[in-house]
Amino acid sequence: MFPEFDYAARLEHTRDRLRRVGVDALLVSVGADLPYLIGYEAMPLERLTMLVFPADGEPTLLVPVLEAARVDERQGAFRVRAWGETEDPVALAADLVGSRSSLLVGDQTWSVFLLAIQERLGRARFEPATPFMADLRMRKEPAEIEWLRAAGAAADRVVAGLGDIRFTGRAEREVAGDIAARIVAEGHDISTFTIVASGPNAASPHHETGHRVIEAGDSIVLDFGGRYRGYHSDTTRTLHVGEPSVEFATAYTVLEQAQAAAREAVGPGVAAQEVDRVARRVIDDAGYGNRFIHRTGHGIGLEVHEHPYLVEGNELPLEEGMAFSIEPGIYEPGAYGMRIEDIVVCTADGIDELNRSPRGLLLVE
Amino acid sequence: MFPEFDYAARLEHTRDRLRRVGVDALLVSVGADLPYLIGYEAMPLERLTMLVFPADGEPTLLVPVLEAARVDERQGAFRVRAWGETEDPVALAADLVGSRSSLLVGDQTWSVFLLAIQERLGRARFEPATPFMADLRMRKEPAEIEWLRAAGAAADRVVAGLGDIRFTGRAEREVAGDIAARIVAEGHDISTFTIVASGPNAASPHHETGHRVIEAGDSIVLDFGGRYRGYHSDTTRTLHVGEPSVEFATAYTVLEQAQAAAREAVGPGVAAQEVDRVARRVIDDAGYGNRFIHRTGHGIGLEVHEHPYLVEGNELPLEEGMAFSIEPGIYEPGAYGMRIEDIVVCTADGIDELNRSPRGLLLVE
Repeated sequence: MFPEFDYAARLEHTRDRLRRVGVDALLVSVGADLPYLIGYEAMPLERLTMLVFPADGEPTLLVPVLEAARVDERQGAFRVRAWGETEDPVALAADLVGSRSSLLVGDQTWSVFLLAIQERLGRARFEPATPFMADLRMRKEPAEIEWLRAAGAAADRVVAGLGDIRFTGRAEREVAGDIAARIVAEGHDISTFTIVASGPNAASPHHETGHRVIEAGDSIVLDFGGRYRGYHSDTTRTLHVGEPSVEFATAYTVLEQAQAAAREAVGPGVAAQEVDRVARRVIDDAGYGNRFIHRTGHGIGLEVHEHPYLVEGNELPLEEGMAFSIEPGIYEPGAYGMRIEDIVVCTADGIDELNRSPRGLLLVE
Repeated sequence: MFPEFDYAARLEHTRDRLRRVGVDALLVSVGADLPYLIGYEAMPLERLTMLVFPADGEPTLLVPVLEAARVDERQGAFRVRAWGETEDPVALAADLVGSRSSLLVGDQTWSVFLLAIQERLGRARFEPATPFMADLRMRKEPAEIEWLRAAGAAADRVVAGLGDIRFTGRAEREVAGDIAARIVAEGHDISTFTIVASGPNAASPHHETGHRVIEAGDSIVLDFGGRYRGYHSDTTRTLHVGEPSVEFATAYTVLEQAQAAAREAVGPGVAAQEVDRVARRVIDDAGYGNRFIHRTGHGIGLEVHEHPYLVEGNELPLEEGMAFSIEPGIYEPGAYGMRIEDIVVCTADGIDELNRSPRGLLLVE
């Protein structure tokens, strides 16, 4: 499922960092931190899977006995402790932590487990592992970039085939079904999401694809992605059924300029928020400022959304190897919406573009 | 997406219960508690969605502004507070809680948010909402049972069509793709999982469906489910490519007896663990005791796995309206596996069977 990275080296590096920042143990459960560290993903179910990683000891993966066969013990880099149906995994986790007192907890760990562990380890101090793990994961290794590139290319092939799909007269969810099938057909392991937001629905950036039937004159925001050996694609193109109005076409030109300006703004040392400001300034200057209601982008990798976030207030300087989306949008409530989204990687002198589909408005039938 | 239940009544009932148990506020985020209460499901992303429900005030849903259009404000039963990209939703949640001190937290709430809320509300006492919400959700309303029945019937139609699928010579994941498509074709909104565990893989109850090619002589554990207007199906049948060995057939007969005995054991007032014991006793008595490595069942509804769990140690008396799986299995490491799983609802005098496919070993090619 996940590529064969050198997980033993990642664990060693992580241990060094834990010591350097003065943390006693890292507790990681569901979400992408665990596959980053050991190449295994916890099932998001009521039976606890947790890696307990003391800075001064061996990492141990607690896993339900009926899932133990899923775990590939990579290079002996960690121990596996399969727990049986009548054992208490929280007690096992607490025992593994012992008297260590400064603990980091994986961001998506279920609260029911955190609260139970807190109950048992009353004196320990718990903090989110988010900044610690983001620092490890944000700068992609060259091999990770190649998986993201493969995912992006597969997404671009889906875009290239959109001309074959009929839109008019079909429900959003029917179209979404076609696209989900193509996401897989183009090489992704799974389709993770397909937003098909048509007509007035296009003004809702995270629209829940539904039963609305697409009709002539609609704009369609098509935002989709899949998972490719653990790494995600995420791209958005805006379609229009028939010729757009002058009003729409004018706004779209502004959006293209904003997205291009944001791509050009990326480089090492540039603050994440600066990229957002550049896109926003173009849209503001054209008079659509209050119609761009979300940040300009998000990091991508083992998660669709991860650090760094391109948002006002994030002063993090971008670095080579960081991968993220550039996706400004303009939304007119009740009428239309438009967004252009590409994944890029920050390089020494600008960006490596992982999506290369044409960005112009795509006229469809 | 979710059926039109009377969510206002549910919220009122929940408020009464909060007062009765002496809780000041309930905090609910990702997972099934939120759709149970208001018919809206939070996106499992880094932007916080949370219902803050004080026992003495109006429930307020915090939702990212770009998802606000997804929320259907049902019957004015709760307020919506859309938060913008540069606001801090944790601060908003803390403000809504105010000085209230006894708080319940939804079980799947991301730890990164819980820790941030704990930081702001240092004096409050946080406990898992799990028992509180389980008590609300375990006894299904008649309308909920009808959605579970529709989901179960759709799953049964997938089983009925298995004879048309070719197994031999194909990879597990190819077969899984066919089955996922049929899960949707039979009426589910989405396929949630398809375990195709063949040959020695069948001995891994939560096997990760993979590249193994199915061959003559394999047993295949086929465990799948989908989501039908929010409610889940989950059924398992065991297949065999060609005639099984005498050893396999003998074990399968034991498994059928164990599953039937467990179904017969269900009734109001029977402890959840008793159903597990009944199944286990049949398997133990036949000499396969150490080959049945998981509990006998789990509740089902808005989640695939929810309360009640049929497991040793759970003394909860079953009640009319509780819906759960009955799924003993026998697993011989390195060789084969078998499981039979049906969803049933506890009734006044036994069970209502939501899966009715034949339970015998299904011979396939």
